Amino acid sequence: MDEFFYEALNQARKSYNEGGIPIGSVLVYENKIIGKGHNQRVQKSSAILHGEMDAIENAGRQPVYVYKNSVLYTTLSPCPMCTGTILLYGIPKVIIGENQTFLGSEDLLRQHGVEVVVLNSQECIDLMKKFIEEKPHVWDEDIGV
Amino acid sequence: MDEFFYEALNQARKSYNEGGIPIGSVLVYENKIIGKGHNQRVQKSSAILHGEMDAIENAGRQPVYVYKNSVLYTTLSPCPMCTGTILLYGIPKVIIGENQTFLGSEDLLRQHGVEVVVLNSQECIDLMKKFIEEKPHVWDEDIGV
Repeated sequence: MDEFFYEALNQARKSYNEGGIPIGSVLVYENKIIGKGHNQRVQKSSAILHGEMDAIENAGRQPVYVYKNSVLYTTLSPCPMCTGTILLYGIPKVIIGENQTFLGSEDLLRQHGVEVVVLNSQECIDLMKKFIEEKPHVWDEDIGV
Repeated sequence: MDEFFYEALNQARKSYNEGGIPIGSVLVYENKIIGKGHNQRVQKSSAILHGEMDAIENAGRQPVYVYKNSVLYTTLSPCPMCTGTILLYGIPKVIIGENQTFLGSEDLLRQHGVEVVVLNSQECIDLMKKFIEEKPHVWDEDIGV
């Protein structure tokens, strides 16, 4: 397993172990992780810190060339908010753990020329399925349904 | 001037007076402000706290019916990130101060059935123009250019 995807999955597991939503993400620039994070809805009562947002926020303020040469790894297909953030900053490539438990705005990413890779990771699927079964209302809240 | 738009503009002015990007926003549910905020790039070194995001975050965790019956006021046309957040939560109406200094993803909002009202506020235009002239690089960073 790719070391960066492994760290995104690690972040997802960490969040699950904290009682939170198990979605993790890392932002990679020049082959180094510059930001990592996980969903913070439960942990920080946050409406906007999805895994991708947390990783991007933890990377701090960056000039545009950093984003335009970065890869975002995330364990789950990015929702419209995270998709919009990827498009705002021009992140050119997104590697996604799975899109079976939730399919985000991958079409919109592709329409804007973003390279989208879906790994179909069974570990990501199992972790999300377990969480959704245990806390369906928290999950619904996270995706606005 | 509408009291809610006035508060969004107040938030923008507050941010300007703090040395930050002058964009403010409020989220209104049942005729009451449940979240207000402003761009926090400078103040909190944030890559994701645009005015709209800050207001939504400050509203805290909300069930979906709150978002689906809310109105978002913002002094500037929403970027792709903020647009995606509006779509994620199904906020049905967005009232925008101006879209002359920056045109966001209003088309995408309308395509998804969001009611978009643009006020063409001269105060919002003047405030943004002044900031962009004073700190063009901060502004570029905020919109990923």
